[in-house]
Amino acid sequence: MTEMIQGAIEYAREHGDRFVDELLEMLRIPSVGADPAYAADTRRNAEWLANHLAALGLDNACVMETAGHPVVYAEWMGAGPDRRTVLVYGHYDVVPATMEDGWDSDPFEPVIKDGKIFGRGTTDDKGQLFIHVKALESFLKTSGAAPVNVKILLEGEEEVSSPNLVPWIQEHKDLIKADVCVISDSSMRVVEEPAITHSLRGMTYIEVEVQGPREDLHSGFWGGATHNPALALVEILKSLYNDDGTIAVPGFYDDVVPLTGAERAMLAKIPLTDEQFMAATGVPAVWGDANYTIRERVSARPTLDINGLWSGYSGPGPKTIIPVRAGAKISSRLVGNQDPNKIFELLKKAIEDATPPTVTVDVRLLTTGKAALIPFDLPEMQAASRAYERGWGYAPVFTRGGGSIPIVAELADLLKIPVVMMGYGLDTDGLHSPNEHYRISMFKQGIETAIVYLDELAEL
Amino acid sequence: MTEMIQGAIEYAREHGDRFVDELLEMLRIPSVGADPAYAADTRRNAEWLANHLAALGLDNACVMETAGHPVVYAEWMGAGPDRRTVLVYGHYDVVPATMEDGWDSDPFEPVIKDGKIFGRGTTDDKGQLFIHVKALESFLKTSGAAPVNVKILLEGEEEVSSPNLVPWIQEHKDLIKADVCVISDSSMRVVEEPAITHSLRGMTYIEVEVQGPREDLHSGFWGGATHNPALALVEILKSLYNDDGTIAVPGFYDDVVPLTGAERAMLAKIPLTDEQFMAATGVPAVWGDANYTIRERVSARPTLDINGLWSGYSGPGPKTIIPVRAGAKISSRLVGNQDPNKIFELLKKAIEDATPPTVTVDVRLLTTGKAALIPFDLPEMQAASRAYERGWGYAPVFTRGGGSIPIVAELADLLKIPVVMMGYGLDTDGLHSPNEHYRISMFKQGIETAIVYLDELAEL
Repeated sequence: MTEMIQGAIEYAREHGDRFVDELLEMLRIPSVGADPAYAADTRRNAEWLANHLAALGLDNACVMETAGHPVVYAEWMGAGPDRRTVLVYGHYDVVPATMEDGWDSDPFEPVIKDGKIFGRGTTDDKGQLFIHVKALESFLKTSGAAPVNVKILLEGEEEVSSPNLVPWIQEHKDLIKADVCVISDSSMRVVEEPAITHSLRGMTYIEVEVQGPREDLHSGFWGGATHNPALALVEILKSLYNDDGTIAVPGFYDDVVPLTGAERAMLAKIPLTDEQFMAATGVPAVWGDANYTIRERVSARPTLDINGLWSGYSGPGPKTIIPVRAGAKISSRLVGNQDPNKIFELLKKAIEDATPPTVTVDVRLLTTGKAALIPFDLPEMQAASRAYERGWGYAPVFTRGGGSIPIVAELADLLKIPVVMMGYGLDTDGLHSPNEHYRISMFKQGIETAIVYLDELAEL
Repeated sequence: MTEMIQGAIEYAREHGDRFVDELLEMLRIPSVGADPAYAADTRRNAEWLANHLAALGLDNACVMETAGHPVVYAEWMGAGPDRRTVLVYGHYDVVPATMEDGWDSDPFEPVIKDGKIFGRGTTDDKGQLFIHVKALESFLKTSGAAPVNVKILLEGEEEVSSPNLVPWIQEHKDLIKADVCVISDSSMRVVEEPAITHSLRGMTYIEVEVQGPREDLHSGFWGGATHNPALALVEILKSLYNDDGTIAVPGFYDDVVPLTGAERAMLAKIPLTDEQFMAATGVPAVWGDANYTIRERVSARPTLDINGLWSGYSGPGPKTIIPVRAGAKISSRLVGNQDPNKIFELLKKAIEDATPPTVTVDVRLLTTGKAALIPFDLPEMQAASRAYERGWGYAPVFTRGGGSIPIVAELADLLKIPVVMMGYGLDTDGLHSPNEHYRISMFKQGIETAIVYLDELAEL
């Protein structure tokens, strides 16, 4: 087996620059799944991937329809039924990005600078999903075989919480049957400390809109006796928080499983100091529930964040109106046993209860996602740990991720297999931010680690 | 004199439809003074007016530069030095308008429906300023003379609080020297109750921007320990109000001159009921300081309104970011002795005091305007009252306007002359709103009233 691994790694090194060029080609497709204006581009990305996988010699490579953006599927089952099968999951959709957000260069015209690729989707998740594709290519083009069977499942709706993937999986359970699922859509604090994420936060994402008058009003005519919808929204939003930054929605914390002393001790091994946090984010001071460390707040505690606000006039100069309406996007990161739909009901009730009779309110659920927790003593998790040691050069830490990949919990529940989250990104890659980027060296080292992981799985 | 008046009125009736066509031509110029994108259009409107006035035979018709949008000036001094001179003030700039705001038709492609012209600027103020132009034309084209001298001063920055008109007036005091100033930029409750506005609210208009991180952050990574700038803005804005809707900014009410019993009795003559207010605005319930009647709240009491809010993502679907910043446009309508610059300092201090160390804040002054109060027993005011009786068919009420025309106070202060605000619009014309409109019958009756007012001034 060693020779087979060695061959694959040498191939990956030899063809690394071409792999980067291919990734750049995919990054140029603006697959902004959330925005209907980019629906055709999102589909084009799916087709690009299916064609790419077919060209590498994978079987059954195809674009499969869902009620939303399609799923890309392909498989290599040449290792035979006696070998394990690994299901690789990734997503080709990206969050919105425009120059106005503060990008230094076109988010969909990637540029390489200082050994990093700058562009939307570089680290989340096109760069990371491509690692597995290139690892498999490296085996197939050298030995004509991989140590285990590989199935690849790539979706186009991860950034909107995968609303159509669960029904798709339920219909295709046999097709994607596997022994373990591996996902690379997470990150590490520093290169020397790779991370296997064994816990993810869930999500409830809502949109709130307050309406007062039937249209914008002249603030001179009607100001003083009209409850300004922007003010009403401010009052409603304020009521959802306590002064100490905790969440005031009744019942919100009821189902949070308290952190044990052992868990807190493990999290304390990878501390996040005020200085590190301020340097990474640029905030003038750290905020949040003082009863928990910064690391705990961003990974093991639930949140309620305002993701967007809009009302009235935001152009240049003054405009003296009372806006007809005011809206907000709000999302909650969930942990432990918090149920996303129950949290939606609690939020909706709290918002409606806080709404005065002078305005009307509409609370809409946009997406939900379950939180996930995978035991880290499973053999497939320990195999991942050894793969990092051999392929990456450093032993990993097991960490809790603050983000949400709702499909992780769904995959584990529906397929009854371990889901191993081997991140190949850096916390500071700026995912979801302007100037998202990905280090080429991590992309290349990731491919080698992914090659080794297939070997480790074969040895189990 | 009666024959001269009669001739002018007959001419106005005969040419009324052409007057409307000319007004439509001007309404098609999108003179959105506040938006730099419309600077060329705004200038084009000034040139259109200067050409129009020159073509009517007025002297010295010209576009005069200021540091911002130009002033249009023209005069007819043929009544001679023994006659009074009236200065007509109006403004050709309009507030922003786009179809997305909820217009049923293009705001700058006016349409006539049910006897009303729909379009931005129809009532505020192109339709109303044009009344005086057409009244003067009706005299000049019939008698070759008007009963008094007329100077016309039209500006392009009223909607941004006339920042450059005061210096212009100071430089051109001799040019615009007059005995009385008349302005038609206000409205009445119903046609049968025309209104002379003898008081206007002042204004302090600010923009507030809160910044937290250096760019948008992934809410999963950093949420829980980052003070969300949108939440910080919500907290700051909430702190500016008391729970009863009054303003919590320290010192805000200090210089408000209390309403006397006599003033309250006069305002009580033109009540505004809950039902009327709800019907006119569409709000589900009336709001505000319960110590004052609705009419008092919207005209004789100061306000603090949020005119715009923005932060993060407001497109379709979810985007899980902590926004880099959040902003608001906020304006205060001022009364009595409230000084706009002092109010700005109070607001700035209150906002800065309410800003926690977890974010930074920037408070910018956009515009200010003084409140105005003109005694209604002046002869020029009483002449206006008679003009309505003769030309409009109904005796007017003297009312307090809730809006702000800062230049009214400046004109009165700088020129030491009475400023008579003869409104020819309806409260429900939707100025500053989508589907702003103006009744053609009021436009035509306004011209007749303006003709009569020149006669009444000559008789003083």
